[in-house]
Formats: sequence, C-alpha cells, structure tokens
Amino acid sequence: MIRLGIIGYGYWGPNLARAAAEVDATEVAAIADPSAAARERAGRRHPSARLLADWREALGDPAIEAVLIATPVASHFEIALAALRAGKHVLVEKPMADAAPNAALLIEEATRRGLTLMVDHTFVYTPAVRALRELVTAGSLGDIYYYDSTRINLGLFQRDVNVIWDLAVHDFAILDHLLEASPVAISASAASFVADSPDNIAHLSVYYSSGAMAHLNVSWLAPVKVRQTLIGGSRRMVIYDDMQPSEKIKIYDRGIAVSNDPQQIHDRLISYRVGDMASPALSAKEALVTEIEHFAECIATGARPLTDGESGLRIVEMLTAATRSSRLRGQPVELGALREAS
Amino acid sequence: MIRLGIIGYGYWGPNLARAAAEVDATEVAAIADPSAAARERAGRRHPSARLLADWREALGDPAIEAVLIATPVASHFEIALAALRAGKHVLVEKPMADAAPNAALLIEEATRRGLTLMVDHTFVYTPAVRALRELVTAGSLGDIYYYDSTRINLGLFQRDVNVIWDLAVHDFAILDHLLEASPVAISASAASFVADSPDNIAHLSVYYSSGAMAHLNVSWLAPVKVRQTLIGGSRRMVIYDDMQPSEKIKIYDRGIAVSNDPQQIHDRLISYRVGDMASPALSAKEALVTEIEHFAECIATGARPLTDGESGLRIVEMLTAATRSSRLRGQPVELGALREAS
Amino acid sequence: MIRLGIIGYGYWGPNLARAAAEVDATEVAAIADPSAAARERAGRRHPSARLLADWREALGDPAIEAVLIATPVASHFEIALAALRAGKHVLVEKPMADAAPNAALLIEEATRRGLTLMVDHTFVYTPAVRALRELVTAGSLGDIYYYDSTRINLGLFQRDVNVIWDLAVHDFAILDHLLEASPVAISASAASFVADSPDNIAHLSVYYSSGAMAHLNVSWLAPVKVRQTLIGGSRRMVIYDDMQPSEKIKIYDRGIAVSNDPQQIHDRLISYRVGDMASPALSAKEALVTEIEHFAECIATGARPLTDGESGLRIVEMLTAATRSSRLRGQPVELGALREAS
Amino acid sequence: MIRLGIIGYGYWGPNLARAAAEVDATEVAAIADPSAAARERAGRRHPSARLLADWREALGDPAIEAVLIATPVASHFEIALAALRAGKHVLVEKPMADAAPNAALLIEEATRRGLTLMVDHTFVYTPAVRALRELVTAGSLGDIYYYDSTRINLGLFQRDVNVIWDLAVHDFAILDHLLEASPVAISASAASFVADSPDNIAHLSVYYSSGAMAHLNVSWLAPVKVRQTLIGGSRRMVIYDDMQPSEKIKIYDRGIAVSNDPQQIHDRLISYRVGDMASPALSAKEALVTEIEHFAECIATGARPLTDGESGLRIVEMLTAATRSSRLRGQPVELGALREAS
Repeated sequence: MIRLGIIGYGYWGPNLARAAAEVDATEVAAIADPSAAARERAGRRHPSARLLADWREALGDPAIEAVLIATPVASHFEIALAALRAGKHVLVEKPMADAAPNAALLIEEATRRGLTLMVDHTFVYTPAVRALRELVTAGSLGDIYYYDSTRINLGLFQRDVNVIWDLAVHDFAILDHLLEASPVAISASAASFVADSPDNIAHLSVYYSSGAMAHLNVSWLAPVKVRQTLIGGSRRMVIYDDMQPSEKIKIYDRGIAVSNDPQQIHDRLISYRVGDMASPALSAKEALVTEIEHFAECIATGARPLTDGESGLRIVEMLTAATRSSRLRGQPVELGALREAS
Repeated sequence: MIRLGIIGYGYWGPNLARAAAEVDATEVAAIADPSAAARERAGRRHPSARLLADWREALGDPAIEAVLIATPVASHFEIALAALRAGKHVLVEKPMADAAPNAALLIEEATRRGLTLMVDHTFVYTPAVRALRELVTAGSLGDIYYYDSTRINLGLFQRDVNVIWDLAVHDFAILDHLLEASPVAISASAASFVADSPDNIAHLSVYYSSGAMAHLNVSWLAPVKVRQTLIGGSRRMVIYDDMQPSEKIKIYDRGIAVSNDPQQIHDRLISYRVGDMASPALSAKEALVTEIEHFAECIATGARPLTDGESGLRIVEMLTAATRSSRLRGQPVELGALREAS
Repeated sequence: MIRLGIIGYGYWGPNLARAAAEVDATEVAAIADPSAAARERAGRRHPSARLLADWREALGDPAIEAVLIATPVASHFEIALAALRAGKHVLVEKPMADAAPNAALLIEEATRRGLTLMVDHTFVYTPAVRALRELVTAGSLGDIYYYDSTRINLGLFQRDVNVIWDLAVHDFAILDHLLEASPVAISASAASFVADSPDNIAHLSVYYSSGAMAHLNVSWLAPVKVRQTLIGGSRRMVIYDDMQPSEKIKIYDRGIAVSNDPQQIHDRLISYRVGDMASPALSAKEALVTEIEHFAECIATGARPLTDGESGLRIVEMLTAATRSSRLRGQPVELGALREAS
Repeated sequence: MIRLGIIGYGYWGPNLARAAAEVDATEVAAIADPSAAARERAGRRHPSARLLADWREALGDPAIEAVLIATPVASHFEIALAALRAGKHVLVEKPMADAAPNAALLIEEATRRGLTLMVDHTFVYTPAVRALRELVTAGSLGDIYYYDSTRINLGLFQRDVNVIWDLAVHDFAILDHLLEASPVAISASAASFVADSPDNIAHLSVYYSSGAMAHLNVSWLAPVKVRQTLIGGSRRMVIYDDMQPSEKIKIYDRGIAVSNDPQQIHDRLISYRVGDMASPALSAKEALVTEIEHFAECIATGARPLTDGESGLRIVEMLTAATRSSRLRGQPVELGALREAS
C-alpha cells in the first residue's frame, strides 16, 4: 500500500483523491491546501487523511512515499522539485511546468534519485486513447498522414494560461503517445476577443519529419462543445468523438488507391476505397483510476511511466513553440531551434 | 429573353444548362464542347440548342447575348476575354482565373465595354448563405469574431488544382460576401499524401484588420463528408451545417459577458450567457436558379452582381496567398504586398 | 426545517437522501434499511442521520415529520399506510402501489388526516417537462393530437415488475401532467424473450376522449439507449430528446393547413406549413431537488402536490389496464370499466 | 431486349420509365396516360416510346411483352387482369390490389398463363434490405425477437388511401421478405386529425407464431422525417436508418445472457453483452434498376420473383387486417380468420 499526499484540493485535486482512494495499491494519507474550506471538504470525504495547510508538511512526513500535485501551473516546478528532493515519487498535473528548462531540471532530479516522475496527462489513460494506440502500433491504420482535432466549447476562461496551454495540451499528449515522434515545427494562429484575457481561440499546425501533419482547433468561445479527432492513415481512417456516450471510436476501411496499371495511367490514376466501418466496444473503466494504478506500479517496479517526465517536457516544448508562433501570425517555430536556445 | 451560350459541357456545364433552361428570363441557345459524346448528351436534354464543337462559334453568333463558361480553370481567362471582346456578357465558373493579373484584365475589359462580368460562386446564392448575410448585416451576430469552416470528404482528387483552389474557394467566396472586408494576411499549411497529386489537405488561417479570424480546414482525404461552419459574434453564434437536410442554420444566443461591477472584479470577471437556439426555415429554391436569375437581371438593369469580377479577383488573390504560404510552412503572406507585387 | 426519514437505501434511496440533504428546508434525520451494508454506506454519507434496521422505528420517532419511501413496489402500500397512520407526510417512490385499490386507500387515509401524500414521479420536475407543460398550458401547441414516446435501452432487467411498470410509468406521469385528462382506453402488446422474466418489450396505445392519442414504445432489449418523445399539436410540434446534452426540446412551427377556399377545393385541400424551429435554454437545476423543495412547500402550506395521490392512482390504473391489454394481444381495456370493477 | 409498356405516368411512372431505360435488358416501347400533359413530359424524356391515351392500346400491341402499372390503387386489379389476359407479364405498383380476393385472382390468372406477376415493393431491392436479408438468413442475428420501425414525416397526405396503406406497406414488404413467415394477428390504432382525410397516424403490432413481434409507427403528421428500424435478435441487434447518407446499417454485437450457473442463480441471472458495432459498406446501385433487372430475368428464365404475387397478396391481407383492427381500437384481427372469411 503506497501512502500518498495530495497537494492542492481545488478543482482537480478532489478527483485525484477520489481515484486514489479507489485504487487498492494506494491510500490517501494526507491532503494539503492553504484554504480552510478546501480542507474541510477534504476531511469530510477522506476522514482518515491528515489535513495540512502547508504542502511542506507533507514532504516532511516520512510515512508519505509519493505526492500528487494539483496546484496552479506556476507552482508545479517548485513543489515537484522539493518533493523529489524530499525523496518522494511525483505525479504532477499537466502541464508539467511553465517552462521547458524547469521541466528538464525535474527530470534530472528524479533520475539522479531513482524516483518515479509522472505527468497527469489523463487522456492517455482513457479506454479510447488506449484503443487508438493499439490501432497505431498494430499497423491497422498504416502510415499516419494526419491528426485533426477540434476541442472547443463555451468557457471556462482561464486567467493564468491561454487556450493553447489549457486545451491543446491534451492533443499534444495524445500525439506524443500515439506517434512516438517529436514534431519539427509548429505554426499557430490565436486571438483573444475578451479584454485582458489570454488568447481564447487558436489553430495549430504541427509538422513531423515523416510528412505527417497534426492540426488542432481549440476554443473557449464556441456555441457548443465538440471533442472530435480525425486520424487519417494510408490503410484506414478513424473518427474519435469523445462526446458520444458510446461508439466513441469509428474505424473506416477507407482510403485511396493509386493505380500503377499502365492502361489506366492516362485515365484516372486515383480510385477510392470505401469499405466497412467498425466501432470497438470500449472498457468503461475510469481513466484516472487506470492512471493511478499505473503510477503505483511504476513506483513498485521502477518501470518508466507512459507519461513520464520526458514526454511531459516534450509537451511543454510544443506549448512554448505554439504560443511563440501565435505571436508571429503563424510563422513556423522550429522545435529543434527552441530546444537549443533554452 | 436572354439567349445564352454554354461553353463546356463536362461536369458542371450540364447543371448550368439545366438551371438556365428553368429560368424564365434565359434560354439555352447554344452549347459548345469539343467532345462529341458531350454534345450528344447536350442535344438530348436541350434539343433546341445549337451544338458547337468550338466555343469560338458561339462568340461569333450575334443572337447570343451572354455566355456561361464551365471549362477547366486554365482556359477561363482566354475564353472570358474573347467573349467580352465579342460583346458578350460573361458568367464564369469559379475560380475566375488562374492568376490575379488575368482576373484584373477581365474586369478592365468588362468595365470598358459596359458588360456584366459575374463569377459563379454558387454558395453565395444558397438560401443558407442568404440567411447568414441577413444576420450579419442586421447586426444580429454583433461584431464578427471568427469564421471556422470544415469542408472535407473522400475525394474527388483533382489534377489541375490543389485542395485550396478546389474547396477553400467556396469559403473565400462566402467570407468575401459576409464580411465585406479583405483579409490582411493568410497563413496556410498543406500536404499531399498521394504521389504526383497536388496538395490534398490544408488548413488556412485568415487575418482581418478588424481582429476577426477565419479558419478553413479542407481535405480530399477524410473518411466522411463534413460541411460545417461556426461563426462567432459578440452577440450570437451560428452553426451552419450544410449536410443537414433541414436545420442547416442554428443561431445560438450565447456568448460571454465581462462584468464591470467592482464588486465582482476580484472574483470572476467573465460570465457565460446561454440562451435559446433558433433555426430559421429556409427556402428550398435551388441556388443555381437564383444565380442565373440574378445574372439575367444584372444584364437587364446594369446592376452590379453580388459576385462580380472584383470579388472574383479578391478570391483569386486569397487563393494565391494561401498557396504561397503553404509552401512556407504557414509563414503568413500579406495580401497587400501580394497585390503590389503583381 | 422538516426532519425526514428515508426508508429504503438501495438503488434510489441514496439519490433521495442526497437531494434532501441539499434542500434548505429539509434534513435527513433517519435512514432505515434492513441491510447492514446499506446502513454503513448511508452512515458515511449522512453522519448525522439515525441509522435504523427497521422502518417501523422511523415511524415511531416523533421528531420525524415526513418519510420518503424507496423500497420495492410490493411494500409501498404497507409502509405508506403505516406512515400516514403514524401521522407522517409521505413521498413514495413510483409507482405509488401495486394495485389501484391500495392507492385509493392511501389517498383516503391522507385526506382524512390532512397529510401530504406525494408520489415521486421525478420526470414531472425536470426542466424539460416543466417547459413542455408551459407550452401546453399557454396554448403554443394548439390542440394536442398525439404524444409518441420511445424509451428503450439494453437492460436493466427487473424481476418484480415488467417493462410497462418500469418504463411506461414515466410517460404515464408526463401524460397525466401535460394533458390533464384521463385516457378512456389502452391497447398494449408486450413480449418476453428471456425465460422466467417479466415482459421486456411493449407498445402501448392510449386513447383520449378528445381524440388525442398517445403511443409508448418501451424496451429493455434495444441495442442503444433512446429517450425521445414527439408531441404533435394543431399549431406546433415538439421533439423532446432527453439524451441530448443540450437542445433537449425543439419546437417546430410546422403543421398542415386545410384550405376552405372554394377555388382550391377540387385541387389540393391540404397544404404544409414549414416554419422555424426554436430550442429554449433550460435550467440546469436537478429535478430531484426541485421535487423535494416542492414536497417541503406542500407540507408547509397544505398545497396539493403536482404529483399527488390522485395522479399516482390514475397512473397505477393506466399501468394495470396496459398490462391487462397486453395479455389480450392488444384488445383495448377501458379505464372506466376497470375503475368500476375494482 | 424486353419491350415494356408503362401504364400511368403521374408520380411514380416516370421513375419506373427512367429505370427501365437504364436497364440493358429492357426498352420503354410505350407509355400510356390519359393526361396530355403527362404524355408530353413522357415524350420529351422517352422520344422513341409510343405515347398512348388509353392503356388498352398498350395491351393490344403485340410487340409489347410486359407492362409496368403505376396507376391509382383502385385501378390496379382491372388493368393487371386485362394485361395478363392479353398475355403480358406484369409488374404492378404496391399495393398489388385494393382487396385480397382481387390479388388472389391475379395470381390465379398469371399461374394459369405461365406469366410473370411481380409487385413493385421497391424496398426489398435496396442494398440495405439485401444486406439485412443476408444477415437474417446467415443466422448472424440469431432468432428474431422484434422488428420496430418508425416511418414518419410531414405529409404527403393521400386522399385515396390511409397512412397504413401508404407507409406501413413498405414495412410489411420488408417483414414478409426478411422473416419468411406470415403473422398470426395484427393490432392497430389509428387516427385522423384532418377533417375528411383518411387516418394520418397509426401504430401497428404484428404477432408471429414464433413469438416474434413487429411494431410499426407510421405518420404523415410528424415535424421531421424519420426512417428508422430496429431489429433485435438473440445473437445481434441492428439499427437500419435509411436517412443516413452512409452507415445506414449498424450491427451491434449486443444482447443478454442468462446464466445457468447455480452459483449465480440467486444472484443476478441476467447479464449484458456489450460488444463491437460494425457497419457494412453498401452498394450504391439504385433499387429500382435492380428490381427491373430482376423482373426481366424472371421473364427470361421463368424464375419466381422475390416480390411475387403471393407475397403481394400476403401484404394486402396484412393491410386489410391492420385497417380493420384500427377501427376496433386495437382489437387484434387474426390473419387466418380473415383469409377464411374472404
């Protein structure tokens, strides 16, 4: 049984605590939040947990082996670094840090101490993304041509991060997991239509060395909620619609075929393949529970998490590149150049 | 009764001829196509029309007052110029020409001769876009923030034009009509996943001096057909889904409200407005019939067509800028610079 | 503050308890359930409530003013009667009783003692049904022609009641509330495709003296979940789709118009009216909270609940008639005859 | 090449003529209609066909081998009988006749003369119903439990037939084809909400000796057009949605499993099976072309049509039983008794 400290009990912390309480291998030993009201809520739901006003107390408790950090982004680096230095394993909310160099320091610290460092990119642990990953690795889709995602809704407006850091971060995590490749450049356009608010709509184009392209449409200013991704491959294409209660994933045996038949060469080279569609039944297991089980297992075995520090760093780099390009009206920002500069 | 010559009877010409035959004010007097099979088909459906192998014959026929040109893009300029010089009014398929300077020459020629020059941007004449235009000009949407369009399907691959010239051209025409403003810059990313084929997927970001942004997602390589546009304004938002048999347009009384209340200033500045949705009944009249009636009326009255040569030119400029940006991985191309350069 | 006893803490009781705890005017004073495990769950969520193994203890507690009964249907009558005799106000789960005479006895008892007797027909308190009720009473729909409901899904199979008592009961409650009229007869067909299971699919036709008809399609054996109702009136028609996250209600300004114009009389008498559609924004308030607030207010003021004993009785009569008809392959069962016979 | 006479060129006749012209094995030799305007339209589209004011002339033409009859229902019997007596093969619009005895006489006449008699139940020839038939005969669905169809829209109101004869006729044809079994009884409820109009909404329950049930919901008075059928079997379930441009058929590997495990017997006997969904790609071939090819082939080979006179008779019997039950408020009408009585 791994004893956990939950740091931050605002919007997301209660979800982490609830999931951790459901996982057999973990126990919520302490919950830290500066707000008395938050601690009171925490106490009612987790009567056996220590309630702390200062997260440093959790780090000083030798009975606590690992911490889950769900505080504002700006504090991720400081708390995670202190936790690692106190010998705790760390699962930190996304994005891992507000800047790539800080993310790199966390990786270094965790490596030196042999501790598990994991980033809470929850989508990677959903049954839908697990199924997509299997399709990609099994070669069912063939070569990946594009990933095209629409992630829009009305609100919630954030004050401390723009819509790229708030929403595109999910697609970056899914892309990093599915493609196992880092992009070479990102072009982004963004705009804010609310005074004194960070950018609230954005479109991002992500270039890969394989020729694959990703495109993300993120917005806090849409009349309806959409969570839809199209993935096009040389063999099959997928629609992943996260708003559907069932049939979230539809796999289309469709594509084009280019004829090499010299008879047809002057005629019509490109024909269409329109085959069946299939929609696999997905597990109903909650992603957060799967994720915390994985965290516990990585701590126990020393295995590398699916969403380890390195992937967290790559995602912070993508977020940084995208925000930079958005200030240049879509001028592409090279990821390599960015990394060298930092 | 205006006597028309139809030039080109391949894919689109038959639609123009059929619509022209339905319009009271016009008559299909001649149909020209180099293919004998095409002329045979034309003859069966339009038994009273002259059938010509060479379009020059139509221009030489003094009984013909106007021509509808539905030939490949590369030939638009030559045929339209010759028609104007022969004193014929011209309705030319979109895009108006393959390059902006040619489009400008056509405008000049038409103006000098006092002839009607119109471009067949059919979408502008659909009941749905007519309704959108009314919403915008009546101020129902408030200030326009964004126009976000997805226009994707499997095929048809074109050989002579890329997906931008094939599909984004429709959104450019709608934008030009709705916003009555020219963009300042366009950033585009595009890719081809089929050997020797022009770009088959593209994403375009269009910047306006008002701060409004348009974004277009166009593809020949999607598993399903989507024709959906979101328009966000300061007062209302619209979803225009052209694939719906009814309820093509939904108007949402939704948005955000920024509080100036000093009591709330430290609290939550931005609140959401979630009001009713309304979907207007639309006319079932065919757009092409409306368009040809409009052409006939402009010829008769000398009025300026909704989709006149000037708008056709602006759209060719946008297509040119978008294609150029796509070769620079999204580096924005200024429309003004482009115009001066040409 | 009205002190409540919750009787039965199985599937539905926890929802009643949670909602009662949220309502300002009520307090969960006691929870009774014979299962020790259920009492343990209840204790964790409602630490200040008395936990009782026997519901009779709750009735004997003078501090408890009212009870919410969420036990199996077969026990509703006995417990509700005892509660009324003990001077408690009663809110009983639907259906009110397993037979009409028992329901009538409960009404009699409550009336004699001046106690509030209410039935938990939750749908009546949903924002969607509130909105439908306003449309009907305001005359927006005109005369009601039909109510056509599909309420199907895979499972959950019940052992003690058939699919009519489990699912059609909701439509009967909505109909009773919307139409303010009792049906004259019901014709039902039903079938079971699972050995030793009560009927799992059924179709019901409900005849009203006004000429209006209702039709209900209920099933535990459908591949997908559907909750959709069409209501047709002489002025407007409505689609109520409870599975939609938003736009649950769509009001269509559509119908037919019969011409009295003698000119047209030999021609085409019936024309169609296809006008706009509107979808009102609905409150997000939880129905169960609204319902318990209403119960508290009826207790305080002596007002008659929307879903009072009389309506509960009418619904039990409809359920009885429907089940009887289903055994006669759809032979219609008159509600009046049924009432006299009992 | 089989030379055909088309009798009736109103609403449906032009579709038959167009399809017959497309089929290689048939030729439109004559078109008969009493209306001069109809004959003029026919002449423009079928310039080589003889145009006749009186259908008797077509029967007298020895060059005509077969007739397609698309006249009002009331005249089907007279014309079809005369055609058979004149030695012509007959394809008659649905329903085959206005009464079962007349349908039986047609069968008798065709049998005696060795002529092909086929009924135009077009749905049976659609790619979707062909696919459903394959699923049923291959046993993929297991035992059929139910067929549940919604076939509703606004208008078109018919004057000579009620909504059962207009719309339910399609489902009866599909059922007759899929199930290869005659129902034992039908219960129907119907109503008219338009003065002097035949019934415009109806619900039908159809009982089979296997225990299977069919239910049909048909209406001319719905705000939107729906064409959706659910088919439930012991192994799989299907949703057939004819309004979908693609994915018309979805096959769900879902159902229930009843445990015989004595360990579970007191626990939960019924469990759910929620497996994958698959949607087969369907041919885009037009049903009417397939149907006329089939007619031509049956003439050539003497094979029995899929929609032969016998099936046409069974469907007329079902229509008769349904209408009769609807006048008795759903009292079931036995098909056997009906047949004996006639």
